[in-house]
Amino acid sequence: MRAAIIAVGSEMLGISKVDTNSLEVTRHLEEWGVELVRKSVIGDHAADLGRELRETLDSCDVVIVMGGLGPTEDDVTKDVVAGVLGIPMREEGEVLAKMVALFANRGYPMPETNRKQALVFEGHGYLRNPRGTAPGFHLEIDWSGRTRHLWIFPGVLNELRGMLEADFGPWLQMLGLPRRHWRTLRIIGMPESLADEKLKAFYEKYRDTPVTILASRGEISLHFYALGSEDEAYAKLLAMEADAREALGERVYGTGDDTIEMVIGRMLLSRGETVAIAESCTGGLLSTRITDVAGSSQWFPGGVVAYSGDVKMSMVGVDPAHIQQHGEVSEEVARGLAEGARRRFGATWGIGVTGIAGPDGGSEEKPVGTVHIAVASNAGVEHRKIYFAGGRENVRRFATNAALDLLRMGMRRA
Amino acid sequence: MRAAIIAVGSEMLGISKVDTNSLEVTRHLEEWGVELVRKSVIGDHAADLGRELRETLDSCDVVIVMGGLGPTEDDVTKDVVAGVLGIPMREEGEVLAKMVALFANRGYPMPETNRKQALVFEGHGYLRNPRGTAPGFHLEIDWSGRTRHLWIFPGVLNELRGMLEADFGPWLQMLGLPRRHWRTLRIIGMPESLADEKLKAFYEKYRDTPVTILASRGEISLHFYALGSEDEAYAKLLAMEADAREALGERVYGTGDDTIEMVIGRMLLSRGETVAIAESCTGGLLSTRITDVAGSSQWFPGGVVAYSGDVKMSMVGVDPAHIQQHGEVSEEVARGLAEGARRRFGATWGIGVTGIAGPDGGSEEKPVGTVHIAVASNAGVEHRKIYFAGGRENVRRFATNAALDLLRMGMRRA
Repeated sequence: MRAAIIAVGSEMLGISKVDTNSLEVTRHLEEWGVELVRKSVIGDHAADLGRELRETLDSCDVVIVMGGLGPTEDDVTKDVVAGVLGIPMREEGEVLAKMVALFANRGYPMPETNRKQALVFEGHGYLRNPRGTAPGFHLEIDWSGRTRHLWIFPGVLNELRGMLEADFGPWLQMLGLPRRHWRTLRIIGMPESLADEKLKAFYEKYRDTPVTILASRGEISLHFYALGSEDEAYAKLLAMEADAREALGERVYGTGDDTIEMVIGRMLLSRGETVAIAESCTGGLLSTRITDVAGSSQWFPGGVVAYSGDVKMSMVGVDPAHIQQHGEVSEEVARGLAEGARRRFGATWGIGVTGIAGPDGGSEEKPVGTVHIAVASNAGVEHRKIYFAGGRENVRRFATNAALDLLRMGMRRA
Repeated sequence: MRAAIIAVGSEMLGISKVDTNSLEVTRHLEEWGVELVRKSVIGDHAADLGRELRETLDSCDVVIVMGGLGPTEDDVTKDVVAGVLGIPMREEGEVLAKMVALFANRGYPMPETNRKQALVFEGHGYLRNPRGTAPGFHLEIDWSGRTRHLWIFPGVLNELRGMLEADFGPWLQMLGLPRRHWRTLRIIGMPESLADEKLKAFYEKYRDTPVTILASRGEISLHFYALGSEDEAYAKLLAMEADAREALGERVYGTGDDTIEMVIGRMLLSRGETVAIAESCTGGLLSTRITDVAGSSQWFPGGVVAYSGDVKMSMVGVDPAHIQQHGEVSEEVARGLAEGARRRFGATWGIGVTGIAGPDGGSEEKPVGTVHIAVASNAGVEHRKIYFAGGRENVRRFATNAALDLLRMGMRRA
């Protein structure tokens, strides 16, 4: 069974916006074992969309069209589908009545242009849209002697999600294809090439299972799935996970949609501990990541962005002699920041980060990308010096990864 | 002249990665007046790519294929092109020699698999790739009696960019189509619907010029272009910009690729002033945005992430009585944070932010999304209370927009 996604909208052909809605559809296809063979983006032009639709129906069993269901002249999807399939349209009273009521609730009469949203395909049902005005469609059709399933969804993410959950997912499930139970492992503090090397025996053992390794923003993730019943698949995934964890060791920090800041939050919460931060080159990003997690006020009292030398001394209590002797970017200052954060905020753990994010400020001795990280606890202070490449944004991001990693490893040992 | 982009790579059909390289190509097409009519993503399968290529050549004059030029079995682009166009391939000594030398430099012999990267199309030139091993191609061909331009680029962003600059851009320029000179205005602190309303006369006056308004992450941008010679276009853009600025007023904070944090940095630098931050619900994001800008140590001494009530008092000097009487999320505490930041860091300006990012912590009186923002200077303290919708991430992001906006407006008045 081959699927294709067509996203409709000229704005996704411009210089700043790409289609991301298709990822939502893909998630459902992947889970239920339907292969996605192509995605495309087409502008709001009837002729182009018509050609795209015909060509896609020639080669794919399931065609998902998103967008172009709005009330404006630019919204051509239903017209094009009606033309290509030769199905007349009719006004559906239920959809119209709901729209009229919706506008009345807001205190306006329904604009006449909205009426086209109530058009549905003669002889076919439609998908209810509890989150908006445009109905969706599932048209099972004969296309030159072959059965095709054409799904039409709104381009508004929230409305799309609703229909994927309510209509598309259950239909995919009913197809009865081998379900894919996915597992994702998340790894930090190890380059992709090293992970690949450590996983050689794992790849060999599970040769028949597609395993994907992805690197993104300084961390890597390992994705694999198992087929079969829930129980069988679960047993296989557990075995695969155990093997992968044995290969990668404690660098595996989480699974599924975990982030390292979520994992750290859970660890701190369960231990009744807290962490405070004094960061320089990361400029607040480390605190931002910690507080990205809902509920973080339970384990994070606060932090200092100690950008200038004065602030490192006055607000965090770094020893002026250390700054004078070793410079602001040094092991001593990172240790001082970590200890100062822990002390000033009364936290279980303190993290200190100081470095040169660039593009300026580097020297031969301390090039751009040099970062010192320290984690303080009642057991003492751990320190790492690391060089990051890839420009200011990467240095800052990777430095926060390394700091969170060092904290996590410290907690595991404590 | 109609263009299409085909991105090749199964990883872009998965659940986590979308094609973004096409934006780089689009930028060039837009500048030189070539219309992009479709984009697609195809997996690493010869049959699917072959069909896609044929169908696209049927309907488009310029076809850009990206990716699938690597050394592995998955890299099928050149094979498919050779098959579809019926052009034989030959090994190009110059490309091979460069690869061998490159591997020798790294201390390895070249793996035999890399040899396929040296294959080029018989009777056609190739595009040099100074940043990698895979050459690119520009094939001018006859397709059923019509001239087609097939461009083939590596999928590695850096290598793609090099060829777009060196080869594709100059070729587009030579086509001599009416060049589009673009102008972007950036606006903060005004909803899209209000901007649309204020721009009614502007839209009417420039009815013949496509004007795009985009909303993203709590700010909006206005994009338009002028055709013609540099001088003519510049004059027209200046006139359009003046009219748009008159309609939108001081809410226009910048142009082109400006961000509000860059604009604030430039303002502070030119005035020899500094800003310090004490932020609660934004958790470090406001400091992060200020320090996203290279050189920000010249105008940003530092900040405090004052997440707990204790830290608001001990590290920023907020009056305990204010917290007790009005709560941590209140006008009084926001003012105290702004004044405290200014005083403790010895800065010209101080920003204070306190609010409820959610999902928990809201009440009837102070629902999730309530944020108090204050900006302190020697002229006093400005305060705003705002409600943001859209969940934790949006509340945090939009609150930093509002804080940066309030600072910018304060600086304009000072």
